[in-house]
Amino acid sequence: MTLPTRGFEVEEFARRTAAAQEKMAAAGLAGMLLTTEPEVRYFSGYHTLFWQSPTRPWFLFVPAEGKPIAIIPEIGADLMRRSWISDIRTWSAPDPKDDGISLLRELLSEYEARGAVIGLMKGHETHLRMPLGDYERLMAGLSGIKVVDCTEIIRALRMVKSEAEIAKLAHICAIGSRSFAQVPEFASEGQPLEEVFRAFRCAALTQGADDVPYLVGSADQGGYHDVISPPSRRPLARGDILMMDTGASWDGYFCDFDRNWAIGQADDASRRAYDVLWRSTEAGIEAARPGARCSDLFQAMQSVIAELDDQGGDVGRLGHGLGMQLTEWPSHCAWDETVICENMVLTLEPSLSYGDGRIMVHEENIVVRAEGAQLLSQRAAAELPVL
Amino acid sequence: MTLPTRGFEVEEFARRTAAAQEKMAAAGLAGMLLTTEPEVRYFSGYHTLFWQSPTRPWFLFVPAEGKPIAIIPEIGADLMRRSWISDIRTWSAPDPKDDGISLLRELLSEYEARGAVIGLMKGHETHLRMPLGDYERLMAGLSGIKVVDCTEIIRALRMVKSEAEIAKLAHICAIGSRSFAQVPEFASEGQPLEEVFRAFRCAALTQGADDVPYLVGSADQGGYHDVISPPSRRPLARGDILMMDTGASWDGYFCDFDRNWAIGQADDASRRAYDVLWRSTEAGIEAARPGARCSDLFQAMQSVIAELDDQGGDVGRLGHGLGMQLTEWPSHCAWDETVICENMVLTLEPSLSYGDGRIMVHEENIVVRAEGAQLLSQRAAAELPVL
Repeated sequence: MTLPTRGFEVEEFARRTAAAQEKMAAAGLAGMLLTTEPEVRYFSGYHTLFWQSPTRPWFLFVPAEGKPIAIIPEIGADLMRRSWISDIRTWSAPDPKDDGISLLRELLSEYEARGAVIGLMKGHETHLRMPLGDYERLMAGLSGIKVVDCTEIIRALRMVKSEAEIAKLAHICAIGSRSFAQVPEFASEGQPLEEVFRAFRCAALTQGADDVPYLVGSADQGGYHDVISPPSRRPLARGDILMMDTGASWDGYFCDFDRNWAIGQADDASRRAYDVLWRSTEAGIEAARPGARCSDLFQAMQSVIAELDDQGGDVGRLGHGLGMQLTEWPSHCAWDETVICENMVLTLEPSLSYGDGRIMVHEENIVVRAEGAQLLSQRAAAELPVL
Repeated sequence: MTLPTRGFEVEEFARRTAAAQEKMAAAGLAGMLLTTEPEVRYFSGYHTLFWQSPTRPWFLFVPAEGKPIAIIPEIGADLMRRSWISDIRTWSAPDPKDDGISLLRELLSEYEARGAVIGLMKGHETHLRMPLGDYERLMAGLSGIKVVDCTEIIRALRMVKSEAEIAKLAHICAIGSRSFAQVPEFASEGQPLEEVFRAFRCAALTQGADDVPYLVGSADQGGYHDVISPPSRRPLARGDILMMDTGASWDGYFCDFDRNWAIGQADDASRRAYDVLWRSTEAGIEAARPGARCSDLFQAMQSVIAELDDQGGDVGRLGHGLGMQLTEWPSHCAWDETVICENMVLTLEPSLSYGDGRIMVHEENIVVRAEGAQLLSQRAAAELPVL
């Protein structure tokens, strides 16, 4: 196993910035103001868990030309100076009266003077990570600026991964696969689900994950009922169907896939559900080629699911993008007409309802290459494994 | 060790809601619209890691009377039905054209008809967790509603913990203390910091943490330079000062404290810095009594720090609130006049700069009782420990 390099070459950030600036020019944007972790990291390389504290806002401004400008709390200055960013403006945060607002006003006032158009992410799967009151006050004082949604620009860039990003994603997916392969060593009848989760997190760390921020799942007799719960203290029992879905991370990139097992014995309905989902995933893998649309992937998977469940599940989609976030654009939905292209990293996540309110979910991770989908997760067993 | 109960009795949510409604009545609010995880959980008990996916917004509306109303993606309905909430309105998310907006409009239109005032968190340490574009479109269609900032109401409630919350916080702080006590078993000269971090996460999980979402730190010769970096591959070397700062969690509640060690030998400057910070923390513990202000805590700690560093560090504050989030209101700053009261859970986090750009941080967790501060973390050694 060769470990990918942490971080990125400066050229990667220069390329990302140039690509953004090209799209900004086409859209008539004089700059983009970014407030969220993945976007600040995407253009600067700035990587810290400190974003988990809601106290301090962080800003990165991508101008029409030149390198991005960081406007950040002083506590982050040392780390930001190690990035490729050279214009770093700081304040002593927290400061409820002025958490970066004066610095933003100073920067943006020259844009206001020429009635510029500034991009801000206002679209699907985004939010504004600063106090709304601060944003409203800032913008009220900059009435000459026109703020438009720049989600599409960021989305188009981030959806297609570089080889360096794919190497990180392949690495964490391999770690996830090795961790799932260890589950038979620690999950067995009588063990509380909570302990199984703990053991899984340790296994993933031991396999090389930096962290396991996301781990959900369920276990119940003849199938589970929901897929987003924290684990209970209930011991695994013979006849349970167990599912664990993990988002482990390495160098800020996620895997996101799940596995199902039967404890002691598998009931026929669950075996059948598993088989349908496995074949649905096969159909997704086959369909995930450059030029196909997300809606095509959805249809390919849904048509197999329909053998058993023609209502569709309540999960809302059959997979999504994957990268610096556990879930990213696009969505494998009937409404998503995104054209799949080379070097997109995607999850295939068919789900169905069966029996008396049971649900089952499968998930694999792929990278789309010129010749078709390449699995990043080790393909799940074709039949429901019994522990 | 007795394990606290997971979750809360229904009475706790009823009490929180009634307390909010009393403050809402005083402020003339007909309701509060909440969009962020801690707030939705605070009033509903709804607890899932699914918030890590940025795809779907989740809403809870607290009316002037009666139980809160959940407006959530269908994928969360099963879990929400297990809470005390009975009015649960769902949609099939993601739906970029209508991610809960019609449901919100339907709910809020009756408030618009009577020109009601609705609270939204717009203040310090908050953000709006929904696409800004969706929010603007929603509100543009509800011009009869007056939206005001309700941060103060939520802040006042969440800052003071119930005994059930304190039991969870005491439990995770004890887990954190036992985990730090194990560090001498796995941190030694020659070991890459990255591996020390991994071993710490496993230790905390083994000690009973549900997760270790936050772990930052540094190690360098004669002192470290920043306190928010991910770990490097650099092996620990004799003469390093090592710091690890963890936010581990149990049942959705955090500890947040750190520890410092010298590897092999400790230099005099670092010993001195450690001593000053240890005594600064003592001063903070002594000062943290009901009736004191955060600014008093700040002054008490800062006056000791000034023995060595009269500039103050660049961390921006000397501690903060602790609970469902790694950092919560209030802040131990000169500007924070919050009156400390019984059952607040706080961190004391003095820091200083010394030598050639070194920084050192100490942190302990306390609960404020009638008679004064009670430590939740096991007090750090009075002298810099050498591993």
